[in-house]
Amino acid sequence: MKRTRKKLKIIPLGGLGEIGKNITVFEYGDDIIVVDCGIAFPDDDMFGIDLVLPDTTYLIKNKDRVKGIILTHGHEDHIGALPYVLKNINVPVYGTRLTLGLLEYKLEEHRILSDCDIQTVSQGQTIEVGIFKVEFIRTNHSIADSVALAIHTPVGVVVHTSDFKVDYTPISGEPIDLQRFAELGKKGVLLLMCDSTNVERPGYTMSEKTVGKAFEEIFMNARNRIILATFASNIHRIQQVFDAAVKYNRKVAISGRSMVNVCKKAIELGYLNIPEGTLVEIERINSYNPKNLVIITTGSQGETMSGLSRIASGDHRQVEINNGDLVVISATPIPGNEKSVSGVINELFKKGAEVIYESLADIHVSGHACQEELKLIHKLVNAKYFLPVHGEYRHLIKHANLAQNLGMNPERTIVMKIGQVLEINSDEARINGNVQSGKVLVDGLGVGDVGTVVLRDRKHLSEDGLIIVVLTVQKETGAVITGPDVISRGFVYVREAEGFMNDLKQVCQEAVSKCEGRNWSLKKSTIKDTLKNYVYQKTKRRPMILPIIMDI
Amino acid sequence: MKRTRKKLKIIPLGGLGEIGKNITVFEYGDDIIVVDCGIAFPDDDMFGIDLVLPDTTYLIKNKDRVKGIILTHGHEDHIGALPYVLKNINVPVYGTRLTLGLLEYKLEEHRILSDCDIQTVSQGQTIEVGIFKVEFIRTNHSIADSVALAIHTPVGVVVHTSDFKVDYTPISGEPIDLQRFAELGKKGVLLLMCDSTNVERPGYTMSEKTVGKAFEEIFMNARNRIILATFASNIHRIQQVFDAAVKYNRKVAISGRSMVNVCKKAIELGYLNIPEGTLVEIERINSYNPKNLVIITTGSQGETMSGLSRIASGDHRQVEINNGDLVVISATPIPGNEKSVSGVINELFKKGAEVIYESLADIHVSGHACQEELKLIHKLVNAKYFLPVHGEYRHLIKHANLAQNLGMNPERTIVMKIGQVLEINSDEARINGNVQSGKVLVDGLGVGDVGTVVLRDRKHLSEDGLIIVVLTVQKETGAVITGPDVISRGFVYVREAEGFMNDLKQVCQEAVSKCEGRNWSLKKSTIKDTLKNYVYQKTKRRPMILPIIMDI
Repeated sequence: MKRTRKKLKIIPLGGLGEIGKNITVFEYGDDIIVVDCGIAFPDDDMFGIDLVLPDTTYLIKNKDRVKGIILTHGHEDHIGALPYVLKNINVPVYGTRLTLGLLEYKLEEHRILSDCDIQTVSQGQTIEVGIFKVEFIRTNHSIADSVALAIHTPVGVVVHTSDFKVDYTPISGEPIDLQRFAELGKKGVLLLMCDSTNVERPGYTMSEKTVGKAFEEIFMNARNRIILATFASNIHRIQQVFDAAVKYNRKVAISGRSMVNVCKKAIELGYLNIPEGTLVEIERINSYNPKNLVIITTGSQGETMSGLSRIASGDHRQVEINNGDLVVISATPIPGNEKSVSGVINELFKKGAEVIYESLADIHVSGHACQEELKLIHKLVNAKYFLPVHGEYRHLIKHANLAQNLGMNPERTIVMKIGQVLEINSDEARINGNVQSGKVLVDGLGVGDVGTVVLRDRKHLSEDGLIIVVLTVQKETGAVITGPDVISRGFVYVREAEGFMNDLKQVCQEAVSKCEGRNWSLKKSTIKDTLKNYVYQKTKRRPMILPIIMDI
Repeated sequence: MKRTRKKLKIIPLGGLGEIGKNITVFEYGDDIIVVDCGIAFPDDDMFGIDLVLPDTTYLIKNKDRVKGIILTHGHEDHIGALPYVLKNINVPVYGTRLTLGLLEYKLEEHRILSDCDIQTVSQGQTIEVGIFKVEFIRTNHSIADSVALAIHTPVGVVVHTSDFKVDYTPISGEPIDLQRFAELGKKGVLLLMCDSTNVERPGYTMSEKTVGKAFEEIFMNARNRIILATFASNIHRIQQVFDAAVKYNRKVAISGRSMVNVCKKAIELGYLNIPEGTLVEIERINSYNPKNLVIITTGSQGETMSGLSRIASGDHRQVEINNGDLVVISATPIPGNEKSVSGVINELFKKGAEVIYESLADIHVSGHACQEELKLIHKLVNAKYFLPVHGEYRHLIKHANLAQNLGMNPERTIVMKIGQVLEINSDEARINGNVQSGKVLVDGLGVGDVGTVVLRDRKHLSEDGLIIVVLTVQKETGAVITGPDVISRGFVYVREAEGFMNDLKQVCQEAVSKCEGRNWSLKKSTIKDTLKNYVYQKTKRRPMILPIIMDI
């Protein structure tokens, strides 16, 4: 009978073979729980897209079986998709205080907070969700109150580290609960799911404290105003800015909507401890001596509308760069942001600021575990099977290799794609079938209405623009009444290319004259092909060509 | 009289405050010479642009005074714009053998080689161009046959390092001619112009030889086919691949048009030394045992149409990834290319290849001098004035600081913008006025016909697409005869949004009905504004809206 007993199903709907939109489904019998529900940021070829959500069709189809969603921490790539998903699947959401505090802002923005069932869990606590017992294990990460999960299932324990690092001297709270990982490992863990983000980096990730030391040195030597940019969610980093500010007698002003919101929430929940009178209004910064002021802002990734970008480009409402201002960018550019960050840095230099950034000082540390920390977790948990998560494909492969180098049987290291179904019990683990998964694109208010066709058109338009040919014809005979008129956008600068535009008109006229009669689509295709060839031959460009025929 | 004597004018038309399109004008009395004439690659916001040329209007205006163009080495950002510029200013071009060898390909492609006056100069040689004596000084760089220039002028000697590094053990030829730099310095140098690319990097750039050592280790341990991607122009790198191949008994095949061209030219000119029978046709690779084969290809930057990208995406004509193939990417991603390179790496892993890339081994070294090398040159040349070149603004600032830390008077370190005119003689150096400068965009055959308007439209179209509204009206009365028809591209997927598209049509109809009469532009603006507001309110998107009125 043992052979036939039910298996645990694990279905990653995001976060494998990609950075972001982390979401994993755990399924046993009729019970489903979901771990995290994050967004990804659009790729360069997703023109005009604001956000990327995971495709949760599978969950919607099985909504009655979903018992709850468990969050490991409050980063966008772990909670960002919840406002969209909860509209379709309204189930209880479990997380630590800060995580839920940050989530509440989002749910308010989407006006669904009051409809949601949000339940606070503390580090170390175990909750029952359907048939699953989910244990919250304290970890360290670049955001406070983050946890790993031990998911106790009928077929064994699954340890999911989520994003983590090992920090023996965290800014607040305790180091990661290594003893509990060890205890679980001692008792026997079926499967380890582990963060792969930094698997290519040898050694250890430095403690967040080292950044504080760098800040102190910078604050000690700075003779003017300090403007510091970092991630709004990195409360420990922000705490260290306040600590250094207090120590060197500076007031702190906060700029940037998300930075203000997060700090407000963090203060309210007691995750940020600020001495009375340290925090000052951004509107009042000019009433302080520059050498007694720090401005904390967003935009460490060079985001166009962020605080730091506005400051650099000179259109920030309150902050203007003065000669000698010291700007500290306490972050590393996420792949793809290098150029925009570097652009911001150059602008700041041009305005007379001194800029300290990543390549020049220890003003940033990663929130993810490097190789030695990963080995530590692997050895403590000592799981029977290993599933690398949270990384691009090459990271997953390298993480599987790392486990194998630690002695794990290659057949027990499982590299999955999103949408695949892992069936596992104490006897075996195998990939068996898959479910719908992928990307849902958010553009303005539209969710999923921009697909490959629209994106292909946007790409085409972005490269060579378009030419519109309008023609009015006699409905009965097809005889041309007026036109063809030729209009272009994003193709050539018409004012300087009138001659050429007239040529195009000429070419269209000839094309039209070639195909008389009432076959509109023939007319259109003739215009299109003739114009396309002519334009390419003359310019080596392939603008989109739109023939429009009005029949009256 | 001394006060009134003529000054040397130095006008950078590119390469300062930017990476690429290096070109500098030297002017004394009626004589002008130009150093280098390179392209830059388009920024992310230059939709559809192929190349960026420096604006050489100033040279065209003064073409009769231009005595010659001097090239320091054969990289695109130093010679790439010549085919375009020589069409307007046909003057003698001076360079070393390999530099001119590579240039000839370009001039042939543009069918102007036969009209051009190209004169070979060897390292160490001095030529007279107008009133200037230009001395070619041997340097090391990531391309063979590169030189610095000592420009002997009536007001003193200007040393222009161009791109360089100090390599005591270069692959072929001699190390940089430090003695000559010292000798010039001893005699007295008026101005140093020095490469700033790596000014942020402490220490020394490693010798190209260290890459060879890494190659040997990789080749020694590889059990299957090796596919190696690097820059086509890095002949020393390619030589080292051949050396390792010969040593470990592998044949070498070359893939990628530019790689083939450069190698052919380098062999012809004797810059690549390949033992008989080592080179094999790419068409015949499958007749060799994988463990006896190396394929050298382009695409180390993840360029879409390049050899390695085609191999990774599975549409390369001759090369298909087999399980166990070893891919070596011998380059560092240039800022902006990180994501595409990383995409290629993931694809290769998915196809079963093992991939070695920069973060994992010493398979690449920079071609530019780091801080210690820069200090060495500053001290040897010991110039009176210093002008940092070849770098973004922040690099120029940091290079000026480096000179000041070596004891140079800040008033003698000059940070310039392109187009500015530096007037200098032995008594003083000051920026005095400026000339036209900037970017000329190349799109297909069009040079300069794509400007800000076209780019703004392309950006707009790429983000939200467009909506076209066509209307036929009675010429005399303005009464609507047919329409409005509403057509969209890159906005919403029409098949799934028919209802919404009908709403838009409805909205247009109402708008039109509001403004009767013969005022076309009023009709258009009414349609535009009404539709714009409606669409934004419904979708939070701002597509381009094009009302077209046909009157008959």
